[in-house]
Amino acid sequence: MTRKVNIAVIGTGRMGSVHVANLVRQIPAANLTAICDIRLEVAQAVADNLGIQRVVKDYHELLADPSIEAVLIATSTDTHAMIIKDAAAAGKHIFCEKPLALDLKDIDDALAVVNQSKVKLQVGFNRRFDKSFQRVHQIVASGEIGRPCMVHVISRDPESPSIEYLRTSGGMFLDMTIHDFDMVRFQVGEVEELYVMGNVLITPEIREFGDLDTTIVSLKFANGAVGTIDNSRQAVYGYDQRLEVLCSDGAAIANNEVETTITKGDRGGFHSAKLPHFFMQRYASCYVEEVRQFVECVQEDKPTPVTGRDGLMAVVLGQAAWKSFREKRPVKISEFDRV
Amino acid sequence: MTRKVNIAVIGTGRMGSVHVANLVRQIPAANLTAICDIRLEVAQAVADNLGIQRVVKDYHELLADPSIEAVLIATSTDTHAMIIKDAAAAGKHIFCEKPLALDLKDIDDALAVVNQSKVKLQVGFNRRFDKSFQRVHQIVASGEIGRPCMVHVISRDPESPSIEYLRTSGGMFLDMTIHDFDMVRFQVGEVEELYVMGNVLITPEIREFGDLDTTIVSLKFANGAVGTIDNSRQAVYGYDQRLEVLCSDGAAIANNEVETTITKGDRGGFHSAKLPHFFMQRYASCYVEEVRQFVECVQEDKPTPVTGRDGLMAVVLGQAAWKSFREKRPVKISEFDRV
Amino acid sequence: MTRKVNIAVIGTGRMGSVHVANLVRQIPAANLTAICDIRLEVAQAVADNLGIQRVVKDYHELLADPSIEAVLIATSTDTHAMIIKDAAAAGKHIFCEKPLALDLKDIDDALAVVNQSKVKLQVGFNRRFDKSFQRVHQIVASGEIGRPCMVHVISRDPESPSIEYLRTSGGMFLDMTIHDFDMVRFQVGEVEELYVMGNVLITPEIREFGDLDTTIVSLKFANGAVGTIDNSRQAVYGYDQRLEVLCSDGAAIANNEVETTITKGDRGGFHSAKLPHFFMQRYASCYVEEVRQFVECVQEDKPTPVTGRDGLMAVVLGQAAWKSFREKRPVKISEFDRV
Amino acid sequence: MTRKVNIAVIGTGRMGSVHVANLVRQIPAANLTAICDIRLEVAQAVADNLGIQRVVKDYHELLADPSIEAVLIATSTDTHAMIIKDAAAAGKHIFCEKPLALDLKDIDDALAVVNQSKVKLQVGFNRRFDKSFQRVHQIVASGEIGRPCMVHVISRDPESPSIEYLRTSGGMFLDMTIHDFDMVRFQVGEVEELYVMGNVLITPEIREFGDLDTTIVSLKFANGAVGTIDNSRQAVYGYDQRLEVLCSDGAAIANNEVETTITKGDRGGFHSAKLPHFFMQRYASCYVEEVRQFVECVQEDKPTPVTGRDGLMAVVLGQAAWKSFREKRPVKISEFDRV
Repeated sequence: MTRKVNIAVIGTGRMGSVHVANLVRQIPAANLTAICDIRLEVAQAVADNLGIQRVVKDYHELLADPSIEAVLIATSTDTHAMIIKDAAAAGKHIFCEKPLALDLKDIDDALAVVNQSKVKLQVGFNRRFDKSFQRVHQIVASGEIGRPCMVHVISRDPESPSIEYLRTSGGMFLDMTIHDFDMVRFQVGEVEELYVMGNVLITPEIREFGDLDTTIVSLKFANGAVGTIDNSRQAVYGYDQRLEVLCSDGAAIANNEVETTITKGDRGGFHSAKLPHFFMQRYASCYVEEVRQFVECVQEDKPTPVTGRDGLMAVVLGQAAWKSFREKRPVKISEFDRV
Repeated sequence: MTRKVNIAVIGTGRMGSVHVANLVRQIPAANLTAICDIRLEVAQAVADNLGIQRVVKDYHELLADPSIEAVLIATSTDTHAMIIKDAAAAGKHIFCEKPLALDLKDIDDALAVVNQSKVKLQVGFNRRFDKSFQRVHQIVASGEIGRPCMVHVISRDPESPSIEYLRTSGGMFLDMTIHDFDMVRFQVGEVEELYVMGNVLITPEIREFGDLDTTIVSLKFANGAVGTIDNSRQAVYGYDQRLEVLCSDGAAIANNEVETTITKGDRGGFHSAKLPHFFMQRYASCYVEEVRQFVECVQEDKPTPVTGRDGLMAVVLGQAAWKSFREKRPVKISEFDRV
Repeated sequence: MTRKVNIAVIGTGRMGSVHVANLVRQIPAANLTAICDIRLEVAQAVADNLGIQRVVKDYHELLADPSIEAVLIATSTDTHAMIIKDAAAAGKHIFCEKPLALDLKDIDDALAVVNQSKVKLQVGFNRRFDKSFQRVHQIVASGEIGRPCMVHVISRDPESPSIEYLRTSGGMFLDMTIHDFDMVRFQVGEVEELYVMGNVLITPEIREFGDLDTTIVSLKFANGAVGTIDNSRQAVYGYDQRLEVLCSDGAAIANNEVETTITKGDRGGFHSAKLPHFFMQRYASCYVEEVRQFVECVQEDKPTPVTGRDGLMAVVLGQAAWKSFREKRPVKISEFDRV
Repeated sequence: MTRKVNIAVIGTGRMGSVHVANLVRQIPAANLTAICDIRLEVAQAVADNLGIQRVVKDYHELLADPSIEAVLIATSTDTHAMIIKDAAAAGKHIFCEKPLALDLKDIDDALAVVNQSKVKLQVGFNRRFDKSFQRVHQIVASGEIGRPCMVHVISRDPESPSIEYLRTSGGMFLDMTIHDFDMVRFQVGEVEELYVMGNVLITPEIREFGDLDTTIVSLKFANGAVGTIDNSRQAVYGYDQRLEVLCSDGAAIANNEVETTITKGDRGGFHSAKLPHFFMQRYASCYVEEVRQFVECVQEDKPTPVTGRDGLMAVVLGQAAWKSFREKRPVKISEFDRV
């Protein structure tokens, strides 16, 4: 059997603690040797709960430890680029949560260090690891139903997050749509141009900082296909996650998962449950699978399934979407010089 | 019981002959007294088949007959406006197939005569009469799931029509999308702005006359909602007709009808039939219901459910879509001065 | 084109008047020359409504008319056998509503005359003509999924008929299950043995005449397959009509048809409509198709798709079910000496 | 927080090793202190894999350890009753895999010791813990759709196990149907009478030891409801697990879970994946949940959700089914004197 990979987790908040638990319980190939958070008491609570020995406050301490091969970065977005640079410079393989950064220059700088130091980098676009979206990818990529003509992503949250969260989130396109930008790239390929229509229909307070809660991004792809991404901050019937690709000889359609398979019939008709609540429930298995594959790539010295360039291009598309919305015109991705 | 309405059909080609058969067999309130086609032998064959007594070549003959109260116009598009004007001037109530005309000025002129002569006019947007789309309309209009935020129409033909047909069809937006423009107006209200992305991915020959076969129209509505219309000339699995409206407190989703309800399970998984072939099958009952309601409106002197303005605005939206595509920019409907 | 078949309808009550309307409007190959009902005014009203010229009170008058080739019998069950015998003796082809009779001896006698006079006889098991059940038959009969192992029919009425109707109906097994007995014979073949479990759970009043409202018939077929028929007089969510055949290499499953394809999502989950109300709605097209095929068989001198023996065996199975229930034991069909 | 429960697992074969892994990874309230198997090397491999310290060959060693509060028995069926008696006598709480034994006398004896020693006993009817079947139970038990009238369980394996397995399995009714007997008792209540129809249609070799592979059990319940259990050893499209309860005011229907939500449309129609392969996949979460609840019952001194009597009655029903099949008659459960 292959050796285990010594890994440390930096940032043990909401996402980080999920990764910590997954590494401990469900990824036998990983050896989680330490966790780190600037809020030491947060990290300590996570460590106590899962029986983790080493807890540190300063991630530099982990980067200095030669026994640690890889780090998983789940800190706040504004620190991603800095930690990536430091970790790459220290020769650690890196799994980093999305987005790499909100500013393209920061990403460029971070990726430059990664490339130079030849460490592996994987970005946390977890949805690529969903078995239904994987199956769509497999069908489309095989060519068995011809070439892609149209793609639609529907991705709606059950309810809006807090105003505090939204204020620093990067706004709809960099916080929420970013996942869908990665998904359409995964399914159909590079985007050439996009156009945005959006509005504030759910949470009037977000107008003050220029955010949107109901948006449609139209896309034109390099291979000639066209598509849309539909996002809403509020689908009261649950977390609505659908995908469909029309090809010249068929279509591949991913419907929503269900909480239970129950239908109740009565005098009023038939009734079934809301959709699985939110991303933590819907994509639980993806959070395991993405890190499991990252660990495997380190073990077997393979390229990672989601690259730094994937992380960059999703942010480029998010920036292009904001540009389209603000300038009320279609925007070519080539305007960003990152091809 | 109320008296029957004496009606004549002008134009007995593909659509006209369907209307003739429906009037004879399924609309007891109508008394089909004559049919007309410039190709007299075509009309005669239809008459023979259904036992209709009076067949004429020149529609003016019917307009001169005081016993005829209403005419159904199903001739080629380029004659609609002229016949509407003549019929209105003769005091006949009018049911006219879509589109009213491809040229806005022709429609303006025809509607002016209709308004002056105070006859009823109904335009043949048959899909409004589909019981599933009616039910969506009812749910959305009732306000029971809040106010509309997004709408999606998917409307894909099973296969491309002949090049000959396409050459004079008005192109994608005036031939095919026109139905969907009417549908989104029916469900969500007036469109304020649209933007088009489209391509030729199925039938390269149509490039020569500037048509498209794969298009996405993004829409912004006067009430703030946004939406898309997805059209393709080729969905090999059948005539794909879906609609969904996301509202602030829920969603109403119309899925495809099926040919049979059969699922076959075998070692390869589960298999079900293609979608009902095409519009004649999928919307058969709508062709009856729209004319039944028109006849009832004449009988009971009520306003028609699809008005001349509805006919006009769908063409305006089609023209706006072509303008957006050609000028590669979002187009405001107000540019057309027809509000 | 082939000549039209001159046909008369005997009995113009609920089912009869449906057949009359279908013959007039939807079966061009038939020439409905006369209708008959002992309640002359009932027949007259039907005739007035549909423009039928000839109305008679005594069916013998029609049987004496050499221009009439075929009769459709839709009188009350207790007169079926008698009219069949008379019609067959008069050389008329016969379409007769189910059941042929409740008493096996009456059926034997009627079929003997039919056989002797060599007229065609078709029994009104309309559900065989449903396109979904036809598709199941086609899949199973083709052998593409191996040989039949199990069959389930679920057939539940939306609400119980009146006590008056039930009192003379022949009871659950001869009134309701009789359709399902024919269906399982159609799909899987001859039944060898059956066993009944049943109860009165919906309408206590029917206990007084020994009827049931909730029943399960277990079946063993001559080819070794086993199966069940599930009947209930009350499924408040609508007319529930399902069928499934498990074969050695797969399964064919017929789900319910739907009224609309609409799903409404809200804070309470997803909601869709009740099932199509009842047999007149659910099987409307079958009533046309069965008579259309009968007329075609007369026209082209072909054997009918549902034979006198099919009519007999369904009643045998109904009698066997009552015997099983009353004697609380499995009953072999061979006990009835009608194989 | 409440204290952890010290538990040991006896028998670490297929099911046992699943329970061991679940206890280690997913049931924080349990403290798995030791595992045991007469094949010591089997237990040792499981222990090595999961980092378990104590491995023994003889379960008496564990029963003698006062620090162990509870045991989970997953040995071969013929040893269940003996180990239960020993464990109960030693004052350990017991979770035992199904069936308790094939012989009713053995169960009686074991339950007598359990009752006397007042330890808790839970039987491994894992399907009760499936969230969909739980939801059906909740709907039915609440009375919101009236009282139960009919129940159907469809439970089909994807493929037949080996002849070796089948030879000692207890046959269809005690190996496979036993789960469904427990399910109908869970959903509808006590069974009063049953009748069996079955055949050998898949694996002719099992005839030699009198087993069946295709069976239907008809059931009559104490509350008047009727029902069926449909079992097959071979559904080539996957592990088919369905349940439906018709009540006087509605129905609750549990459909199959799916592997992915993908539909592929092409010229041949629509295609989706086979069902989740088998019980280990389909009911994975139930194996965790049943033991989690058992541990909680020990912690909080509550009655277990599946009792010794539940274990007994499922075997009684299995014996009654064999009796019905062999004697070709309906069998009353009261014949077994175990009410």
